[in-house]
Order: sequence, then C-alpha cells, then structure tokens
Amino acid sequence: MAVYTQVGAEDAAKLLTRYDVGELVSIKGIAEGVENSNYFVETTHSKFILTLYEKRVDPGDLPFFHALLAHLHTAGCKVPRFIDDRDGAWLQQLCGRPACLIEFLSGFSVSTPSAAQAEATGQALAEMHNALADFTMMRPNSLGVSSFRPLAERCGSAALESIAGGLSARIMAECDYVKAHWPAHLPVSAIHADLFPDNVLILDDRVSGLIDFYFACTDVTGYDLAVTHAAWSFSSDGRDYFPEIGRAILTGYEQSRTMDIATREAFPVLARAACLRFLLTRCYDWINTPKSAIVTQKDPLAFLRRLDFYTNSFDKL
Amino acid sequence: MAVYTQVGAEDAAKLLTRYDVGELVSIKGIAEGVENSNYFVETTHSKFILTLYEKRVDPGDLPFFHALLAHLHTAGCKVPRFIDDRDGAWLQQLCGRPACLIEFLSGFSVSTPSAAQAEATGQALAEMHNALADFTMMRPNSLGVSSFRPLAERCGSAALESIAGGLSARIMAECDYVKAHWPAHLPVSAIHADLFPDNVLILDDRVSGLIDFYFACTDVTGYDLAVTHAAWSFSSDGRDYFPEIGRAILTGYEQSRTMDIATREAFPVLARAACLRFLLTRCYDWINTPKSAIVTQKDPLAFLRRLDFYTNSFDKL
Repeated sequence: MAVYTQVGAEDAAKLLTRYDVGELVSIKGIAEGVENSNYFVETTHSKFILTLYEKRVDPGDLPFFHALLAHLHTAGCKVPRFIDDRDGAWLQQLCGRPACLIEFLSGFSVSTPSAAQAEATGQALAEMHNALADFTMMRPNSLGVSSFRPLAERCGSAALESIAGGLSARIMAECDYVKAHWPAHLPVSAIHADLFPDNVLILDDRVSGLIDFYFACTDVTGYDLAVTHAAWSFSSDGRDYFPEIGRAILTGYEQSRTMDIATREAFPVLARAACLRFLLTRCYDWINTPKSAIVTQKDPLAFLRRLDFYTNSFDKL
Repeated sequence: MAVYTQVGAEDAAKLLTRYDVGELVSIKGIAEGVENSNYFVETTHSKFILTLYEKRVDPGDLPFFHALLAHLHTAGCKVPRFIDDRDGAWLQQLCGRPACLIEFLSGFSVSTPSAAQAEATGQALAEMHNALADFTMMRPNSLGVSSFRPLAERCGSAALESIAGGLSARIMAECDYVKAHWPAHLPVSAIHADLFPDNVLILDDRVSGLIDFYFACTDVTGYDLAVTHAAWSFSSDGRDYFPEIGRAILTGYEQSRTMDIATREAFPVLARAACLRFLLTRCYDWINTPKSAIVTQKDPLAFLRRLDFYTNSFDKL
C-alpha cells in the first residue's frame, strides 16, 4: 500500500501531451496495489489511473494483460482499458519505469459483501469466462498447482513452523494431495486468479468493474471460481464461513455459465488448491518481508482456516 | 506517505448519509500527508478529501484549523473548507478516529517551480496574511523559536554527530544565535508555517489552492514568508539557490502586502530560523523513525545547506 516511484506533476503533464485526453487538472498517489505505483489522474476531459510497474510485474507480461483487457472490453465486460496515445502506443516510460494510462472506473470495493453483491460478482466472473473462450494468448500460471511444493520449500520448514506448529508438515501433505487429485481435463482459459472483493468495484449492488488483472494467467476456469469462492465467503480471518455468500457466488456464476459435471466434482480440490496458493504466498511474504509499522502483513493462517473448512466441512456442490 | 487507518467503503458510504453531498461513487486511499490518513472520495454530487486524524494531530487543535479555513474561505482565499453535515457538525468519528470531510480542490503541486508559479504563491501568501489580520483565534507555534534548543537536546549530541560531524555544535550555536537575534516587535498573525511546493496547488501558473494547514499557528508573518522562501528557492538537496525563484516569492508577496522595514531587516534571521526548524525536525525524524523501504526519509542536510546560504551568501532585502 504505497507509492514506490514519485512522479512529479510536470512529468505527468508532459506524458499526457502524448494522448488526446485533455490537460492535467489533478494527480494524487493512491495507496492501492502492492505491486505497482498508482496515481489517480484527472484531466480536463476525464479520469484515469496512471500505473508505473515496479519490479514484481514483468514488463514482458504487459502485452498479455493489455490484450486480455482489450478483448474483455470489446466483449462488453466492465474492465479498465489501457489508453492508446496518438501513435497507438499504450506502453510508455515514466521516471525509469514502464507506465500505462488506464481508464478509471467508478465504484468501490466492499469490505463485507452482501449476497446480492456476491451474486453479481459470480455472474461477472462467468461472463468474463464466456468472453475469454476465444481469447488465444497464453500466460502460464506461475502460482499454479505445480509451483506449490517448490514455494513451500523456499519458505523452509523451520520458518513455516515459526508461524504455527505443524504448519510445515500440513502444507507439504496438502501440496501432495492437491497435485495428486488435480483434475486432468477441466476447461482452461485465461482467468483472473485473484478476484478478491478488493478487485471488484460495485455500485448499487451491480459490478461496475473487475480490476487488477496482474495475476491473470491461463488455468482451469473452475479454479478461478474456487479462488473467488474462497476469497468472498469467509470472515477475513477465515474463522467464519458465510454460506449465503458462498451460495450467491455459485448461483450468480451459474446464471451466465453452466459448470460442467467434472468441475462440480472437482470443486473441493480446486478450493483446497486456492486456499493453499494464498496460504503459501502469505507465508512467503510473512517470512521475507521486513517487519514495519507501515506495511500491513496479511495473516497466512486466514487461509489455513479456509483450507480446513474445504477439507472437513464443505458439502459437495 | 501512507494510509494508517483502513476505511471500508461501507463505513464511508454510511458517513456520507449525514451530509447533503450525494452518494458514494468512488473512494481511494491517497498516499499524501505524513500526519493523517486521507481518502479521495467522489460522490454523485462532487469530490472531497476524507481525512482521519492520526496521533500526530491533536484533536483539540481542529477547531482552530476549522475556523482558520472558514475565515480564509470567506475572505476569498483559495483554501479547502471543512464540510458541515446536515446538523452543522464538521467533526465526525470514523473507525475510531476524528474525521472530517473536506472540499477537494483541483490543481497539482509542482516539483520544479517556475518564477511565475513562485510569484503567484508569494502573492497568495500575502493575501492570506491580509485576510488573517482580523482572525483572532490563537494557536502557539509548538515549533517556534523557543522550541529549537529543547528539540536539539531531545535529538542528542551523539545522534546529531552521527548525521554529520560538527552538526551538534553548529545547531546549538544557531539555536542561540536565532534566539538572541529574534526580532521583538514584528507583526504577528495566524500563519501557514509549512508552505512548501507540496502544499500549493497550481493550475495554469495560478494558485488554485493552499492546503495542509496542520502546522498553522500564531507567529510572525515575516517568518511565514521566510519559510516559503526557504522551501521554494532551492534545489531539494539545498545545494543550489535559484535567485529568480527567491525574487519571485518576494515580488509576488509585495504585490499584495508591503513588508515593513523591520521585517525586511530581520529577514535573514527569520530565514535562518526557518532553516533551523526544518533541519531540527528532519534530524529528529531521521534519528527516531525506524528505517524502512517504504517511508522516504527527508535529508536533514538539505536544510543545513540552506542555513549556510542564508548565513553566508544572502544579500539583504
């Protein structure tokens, strides 16, 4: 939650002269996105997000994200477009960083979703999956199921044990279980892979935007639904499952896209994989991020508790 | 540069129902202000800043800031007003913090001011001082000249020496010099006391807003001008003095307010005091803030260099 690269207003104003977007009226660094530096930019014509890509985003992936969002926008999905400058270029350099001017979407992320908001989100996810059936670019999921065990090993047993007793053995066993039970023939397409409530803009219980596609990749569509289910249906600490929210995510999804039988049967495994993915990256960040009063560490155990739920208490779909 | 208190969109939307400002459309935490948590809020009617006051602002000072800004706004100065709710209350509680909804002003802070922008700023400062001639509320300057030596002692000689060899003795001598030469009978009023380029919004070389009044206090008006002169007229590291900017600040000021002879004569001492104030607070923060990759430490020596300039190279006005 920070701005890593300081952009002077003069630099931003100069960049904007490349575009047909009017003149700079206001620019504010926004405390959003752990990956990039983001500025809210207002011009005499419209509003934008100016994003500078920091080291955690590989510039080589930007063409994939650009094409994905353009494809989704053309298909009528509510996603922010990259803006082209007068020469048709959407990728710039600013203050030594790759930088893009991106459409600003109204709406806000809810902290405590209602069933109506969860249902709208499930439906928006299904519409996104439908729209991506004919999207052909590929990006491997660097946080996919085959990455789990190597990531656990990079965390290290001792460090995992320092987070919670027994955590290392539990994670290793779960890595093996998920890999052994990973379904072989489920539908695959580009997926969002990180559709937490933070990444859904809502107005009047309707989805006004899906945002933050920087984990988007090619993987099982049912896994994307499972990530969304795990991200939305619990108290943030993972202690409480909210069945009406979980049902609403699935109901909304099925309003626009039918889950095939294989996906329904595999859903508990997909959900366990989703929990393991966030458990592992949160453990890794917990172990490797210097402690500071400024950066709020996300509790890894919030996803261990979700994992327990899907392992022990989740009814089949 | 951070948001210290997380405000959920639902909490913000609920707060807004107390006001006649329309409904929430967007809310973004902004990476501005080291003292408070600030959100950019857009509603169906207008745009606002929502500020939550963290521990460095004493809630007991808020009525002074509120009255000051209301007074300046009535006098035609471009400053952000605190918004009243339907019951006339401008101070709220949100997420356990004192919170205010504040008018959003267009414009942006320049990093490398032009002479025209500096002149406009000098004039806006003079107009502010003129408008405050009949403002009667008082707030002592907790960072005034009598605070310098105690603050230096709280930094500690050893810690000051660790920043630069000889710094401790230099600072102590300067504290004594400034106190001994502090002019006795200069005009006093409410002053901004922190008018760096960051705190001036500019559009088309005109000042569209003076912001961030949380150091405002009662002190010598010429000292406010000296702070502005020291803040604007140098490269940020203090190595280069830009005489055309320094002249423009003074020229702009004198377009709307005549400096009396005593202020002109005292100006070098006022400027040395201004440098000492920022040198001391930056040393204090340098010594007492945990080092972190996120918070950018401001270089104390940038104001030692300015102090050298006003001591050795500054011509009388």
